Amino acid sequence: MEGDGIKVAKLGEKELKECEDQVSHLALDIGGSLIKIVYFSSISSCSSDDQKHGVLKDGIDTSSGNLNYKFLTGRLHFVKFETSKIGECIKFISSKRLHHYGDQDDEAPASDKSIIKATGGGAFKFADLFKEKLGIILDKVDEMSCLVAGANFLLKAVQREAFTYMNGQKEYVQIDHEDLYPYLLVNVGSGVSMIKVDGDNEFERVSGTSVGGGTFWGLGKLLTKCKSFDELLELSHQGNNRVIDMLVGDIYGGTDYSKIGLTSTTIASSFGKAVSENKELEEYRAEDVARSLLRMISNNIGQIAYLNALRFGLKRIFFGGFFIRGHEYTMDTISVGVHFWSKGEAKALFLRHEGFLGALGAFRNYEKNGFTDVTHEFMEQHSSKAKSSFCAGDGLQSSTHADVKDNGCIECRVQVRN
Amino acid sequence: MEGDGIKVAKLGEKELKECEDQVSHLALDIGGSLIKIVYFSSISSCSSDDQKHGVLKDGIDTSSGNLNYKFLTGRLHFVKFETSKIGECIKFISSKRLHHYGDQDDEAPASDKSIIKATGGGAFKFADLFKEKLGIILDKVDEMSCLVAGANFLLKAVQREAFTYMNGQKEYVQIDHEDLYPYLLVNVGSGVSMIKVDGDNEFERVSGTSVGGGTFWGLGKLLTKCKSFDELLELSHQGNNRVIDMLVGDIYGGTDYSKIGLTSTTIASSFGKAVSENKELEEYRAEDVARSLLRMISNNIGQIAYLNALRFGLKRIFFGGFFIRGHEYTMDTISVGVHFWSKGEAKALFLRHEGFLGALGAFRNYEKNGFTDVTHEFMEQHSSKAKSSFCAGDGLQSSTHADVKDNGCIECRVQVRN
Repeated sequence: MEGDGIKVAKLGEKELKECEDQVSHLALDIGGSLIKIVYFSSISSCSSDDQKHGVLKDGIDTSSGNLNYKFLTGRLHFVKFETSKIGECIKFISSKRLHHYGDQDDEAPASDKSIIKATGGGAFKFADLFKEKLGIILDKVDEMSCLVAGANFLLKAVQREAFTYMNGQKEYVQIDHEDLYPYLLVNVGSGVSMIKVDGDNEFERVSGTSVGGGTFWGLGKLLTKCKSFDELLELSHQGNNRVIDMLVGDIYGGTDYSKIGLTSTTIASSFGKAVSENKELEEYRAEDVARSLLRMISNNIGQIAYLNALRFGLKRIFFGGFFIRGHEYTMDTISVGVHFWSKGEAKALFLRHEGFLGALGAFRNYEKNGFTDVTHEFMEQHSSKAKSSFCAGDGLQSSTHADVKDNGCIECRVQVRN
Repeated sequence: MEGDGIKVAKLGEKELKECEDQVSHLALDIGGSLIKIVYFSSISSCSSDDQKHGVLKDGIDTSSGNLNYKFLTGRLHFVKFETSKIGECIKFISSKRLHHYGDQDDEAPASDKSIIKATGGGAFKFADLFKEKLGIILDKVDEMSCLVAGANFLLKAVQREAFTYMNGQKEYVQIDHEDLYPYLLVNVGSGVSMIKVDGDNEFERVSGTSVGGGTFWGLGKLLTKCKSFDELLELSHQGNNRVIDMLVGDIYGGTDYSKIGLTSTTIASSFGKAVSENKELEEYRAEDVARSLLRMISNNIGQIAYLNALRFGLKRIFFGGFFIRGHEYTMDTISVGVHFWSKGEAKALFLRHEGFLGALGAFRNYEKNGFTDVTHEFMEQHSSKAKSSFCAGDGLQSSTHADVKDNGCIECRVQVRN
């Protein structure tokens, strides 16, 4: 965090690249559709004495006078896999030796190095598989706690994390830490959870809906034969929802129903035109189907989120989860929905690291009840320029099909107990 | 209404049958998917003097001392057509001479007999068509006003109209007229309107969703190649949503996520299983697809309805519109949804004449600003036994494909200005 007098010298891209594989600490969020991984790689191109832990000597927190702690400086990395391809994920962890969290010498006792923080339903479902394949025990952390911890971390520690998106305009929002709570966190994964967040660890899951990312992808696959979520999103970008949606104007003969504020282009019934047209699925363009589906689901999430925000008097709604993926039309639809229903009272905000709230929260959990001698403190994210903090992750992709293209690495340093 | 001292002798089935075509007064609700018609047929097997208007002499309201009014006794009939087959509807109206509303002698001036109350967007869209084909002018009545007027009429004047449905149990609810308002009216047509009703003509459309009956039918057609809404409903009855929906147990390896009250069988993501299974649409049973779709939409409507009821402190939610069609599983899903989200605080109620709220409201509008000399007053619905008040409507069906099987006629009498 800023203002605590701790500065880390900016590292060159080359230095960071050289040592990014010196991984310490890994956390998993295993959802219904996707596995999200967060791992920290420290910078070890430092003094040879400190190479083992990648410690920067000048990073010792002398200001606090506590010599029991040292800092690791490096990057948080974000990777995702499809849950159905969990084998690839295991292979990736194994090949990167991520499950050894930086203990490259293998001298530490097995029990210390083989416990990994994990959240999401898959932490339960796949516990045995991880034990068998990697010899690691998944330390299960509650999913909602992780989402909240992840969101709070991002909103407090990372600059240029939250933004609004409306009418094609992206605007970063500076969050005042003193004025963060309460807010509504809407995590759109396969399903949707809506959580009222009142403080660092104060929250309540107040609502949710089963109409989420899994619905978009699942129904979209059945309707369009798309091969991936991103392909479906791309299709939707080129589509026209008016081809299949029944608009107010379709019912009213082209006119508005102005008495109740519905214009002729308002969607009266999603997919309603398919009722009266005697067309087979194949006669519709996949683009238009994808667009109607995306709009239906985005609108619906925006509306239910707004109704819950209203219920608790929350003015800010943060949307996370892998459904959004920075997709402009999705964000625009959600924003317009929240704006429309709240008559401008409530605001939709999005997060750059939207998909990794749970994994980040699990990662943060190390500091709470650390099973080893490690305590983390995220001190600062010192690369606020979007471009320079993004990792293309080509190396990962070629071997594992991991997709980190759109996920910004976070440069930071963590405090570690000696 | 009850308690006003007016009684009508019960008529035999034969008598009613004989004269049911002596139609007076007709109202239309032309929606995006369906056209709903309400018409009144009077009993003319009475004295020959009164045959023209089917007047029952003993029906004159002497108690009010107003001799300007007389009564017509008969039945309200309910018929529906698909909007896309509007030609059939016009043929039906023409063949039944419904647009002459009882003036069998054709002596009345054209302007008096050719104005018909109509609501729904189609009243605007198809105005010219009705003028051209039947020579009638549609007198447009606001859609929301009609829904409310129709619901209020049913809830006040018709016995055994409202019922709850949960766990397979249907229970009629006696509505205390003094304690009717406020309530939430949820009309599920192609789209969904949610209206807070505070009195006879006091209401506000507070919400709505585009995920309604048109979505079920439209998406259902695309996904299953079903030929009709009812066929799709029937299919859904035989399906199993767990085949395609991703349940909490699917994510959590069979266990509950009990900390936040989600059992292993809760749907986490509608259609979410289609994400990870590499199955084509054709590999899923149409029954299972229909079931998941119905459950997704019913749940969603129940949830948004509940959130709106909560917002305004409304304990009763009446569901109308042609989506429901007395379908047990639909009602059960909506009821369970409302019960679950409200923790038992709010109650879902259904209406026997659910699909005809708008048309009934338009019909009621004759009495408000009657363009002819006719004023209606529904005095009593005196056939409260479900069986005897149902019209099979075989005659109508054979010639026009109208479907009145599930719609109960209402026996009543109307007050008409002399």
